[in-house]
Amino acid sequence: MKQIDEMVSSFRDQELFLPIWFENGNIHIIDQKKLPFAEEIHSISEIEELASAIKNMTIRGSGAIGTCGAWGLYLAALQSGGDRETVFHAGTMLKMTRPTAVNLMKTVDEILDAIQGAGPDLIQQIEMKTVEILERQLAFEHQLGAHGAQLIEDGDAVLTHCHSGALAGSGYGGRALSVIRKAYEQGKDIHVYTCETRPYLQGARITAYELKKFGIPHTLLTDNMSGHCMSQGMIQKIVVGSDRVAANGDLANKVGTYMHALAAKAHNVPFYTATSSHTIDHSIPSGQEIEVEFRDASEVTSIYNQPIAPEGTHALYPSFDITPNELISGIITEKGVMKAPYPTSLQNVRTTNTIRA
Amino acid sequence: MKQIDEMVSSFRDQELFLPIWFENGNIHIIDQKKLPFAEEIHSISEIEELASAIKNMTIRGSGAIGTCGAWGLYLAALQSGGDRETVFHAGTMLKMTRPTAVNLMKTVDEILDAIQGAGPDLIQQIEMKTVEILERQLAFEHQLGAHGAQLIEDGDAVLTHCHSGALAGSGYGGRALSVIRKAYEQGKDIHVYTCETRPYLQGARITAYELKKFGIPHTLLTDNMSGHCMSQGMIQKIVVGSDRVAANGDLANKVGTYMHALAAKAHNVPFYTATSSHTIDHSIPSGQEIEVEFRDASEVTSIYNQPIAPEGTHALYPSFDITPNELISGIITEKGVMKAPYPTSLQNVRTTNTIRA
Repeated sequence: MKQIDEMVSSFRDQELFLPIWFENGNIHIIDQKKLPFAEEIHSISEIEELASAIKNMTIRGSGAIGTCGAWGLYLAALQSGGDRETVFHAGTMLKMTRPTAVNLMKTVDEILDAIQGAGPDLIQQIEMKTVEILERQLAFEHQLGAHGAQLIEDGDAVLTHCHSGALAGSGYGGRALSVIRKAYEQGKDIHVYTCETRPYLQGARITAYELKKFGIPHTLLTDNMSGHCMSQGMIQKIVVGSDRVAANGDLANKVGTYMHALAAKAHNVPFYTATSSHTIDHSIPSGQEIEVEFRDASEVTSIYNQPIAPEGTHALYPSFDITPNELISGIITEKGVMKAPYPTSLQNVRTTNTIRA
Repeated sequence: MKQIDEMVSSFRDQELFLPIWFENGNIHIIDQKKLPFAEEIHSISEIEELASAIKNMTIRGSGAIGTCGAWGLYLAALQSGGDRETVFHAGTMLKMTRPTAVNLMKTVDEILDAIQGAGPDLIQQIEMKTVEILERQLAFEHQLGAHGAQLIEDGDAVLTHCHSGALAGSGYGGRALSVIRKAYEQGKDIHVYTCETRPYLQGARITAYELKKFGIPHTLLTDNMSGHCMSQGMIQKIVVGSDRVAANGDLANKVGTYMHALAAKAHNVPFYTATSSHTIDHSIPSGQEIEVEFRDASEVTSIYNQPIAPEGTHALYPSFDITPNELISGIITEKGVMKAPYPTSLQNVRTTNTIRA
């Protein structure tokens, strides 16, 4: 089993873009709220600071927040000299930061389960588990990317929406961008269209930033332009991430995804989502059962706190939308690309036992 | 024939929201670039100032720019004591401001034609023609609105995109908003969803402003939300303006229109465009022959001059898109609502001789 230092050093050699890492006894995170205008690193020495950073979205993205769970417990163990109570308290605090972050819950629980029987070797046990989880997550991104990259052809222009990249995951490319990055690294001549993703502009701010970092040619569009671009034959594939996938393949993802999928259907452009087999929620029969969360509408009426509409304008902010399975050409997972009929293929992927993420 | 003063006073009684008017010997315009944060009026005493205001988009919208032609020539005639050469020179200057503004060309030419035979009565002739043109334009908006309002039912929520309203026209409601305002004034309980319209945000800034002014209940959405809202049954009709309509009914309008139309089709929401019979371009067989203009991409990479993407990000700004006729439920004109097959109905509307605008 590799040790933490060895792993961190190996990560450095792999040209990863890590959202969070451990160095000189502290956790370090990139402030995602400041990107792309400043690459600001916060050094975190207290578990409370990490909890705040998760709560206020300084670090975000389901994969990245999951790894916060591992690093947070490791920090708590180190600082307390391996005190079990401190570690369990840290776990509770982290799980309370974002109650809907399933990956965070699972990661914390996996580590706490693993140390149930630990004694004086508690720090070492957590270290081993942290290395295991982080290497597994990174392997997930490579496998997901490799399966998805088979769908991308030389010369393709690929459209993506929102941010489903390295900083939301484990540093290789998260979900959608793992597919894109892998295709690019295979030497395919590709171009990426990144949609700005109003209201929070993740596509303009963070996806464009990562694509620049990885050297992948790209062009920024406003969300309302994809239909026109497809009508002109400018886009050959769509790859987006996924907040949730229902048992029938219906996809919940950042608002706007559905409209790209409708335009893709109209122009025979294959539409894919990159996800994890563990994101598929078999307890939800279809997208109709997914309740769409409404967020703070002031993000719609203003941009960077600058108003864009008359004072008092009422607005809505449904944070995601549902893309029905008939618009989806394939669901890319770390176990392969699932095709319709999804109720069957997604059921099959559930029972195949490989790495989880 | 009414005189200018009488007309201006009558306009005041009609609760119009005029983009341009004449008062105390000067032209007055609302600075549309400052809306909705300031309602700034510019008093214009020189034809050069008016030409600049058109060029730099302080006043915009095809109908509004058309009326600039009339007011500009009237100002030139008054100031020169009815000097024919000065008036013709002013006409040339105005027509050069925006070479693609067909309404402006037509209005200037109509007035210059009318004064071909004028002598010492030149000022009076221009005054008569100006009153005739402005009253005709206003009548156009009422007729268009009345035809379109028949399509709006009590209880409807109506989605619109970009700005096709009073300040782009003659002050009642321009095109799309004439339909909406007329329905509202008929006592129908309606709600309007206005899409912000990235990148220039006309829907958030100006459409929301007019709806507030007219007291019509409304909600702001980002452009990527209409699909979700339609899937939830929140929208019953779509009414947008039109930059151009081809002979087969294909519609060129602000980018994003096409994606709303695709979502409308998927959810059986009727999609209408409000236009003038004179906007229908019978020389263009279909939308395929319309070249989409690309504008300054810095509007995509920044908002109010504030960057939203990494420095040097490449972007595209196709200023409009083409909605094919099969997605259009009806083309509302001042002569009635045209239905498919459009090649026939649009040909028929061409030959019916009523008011023009």
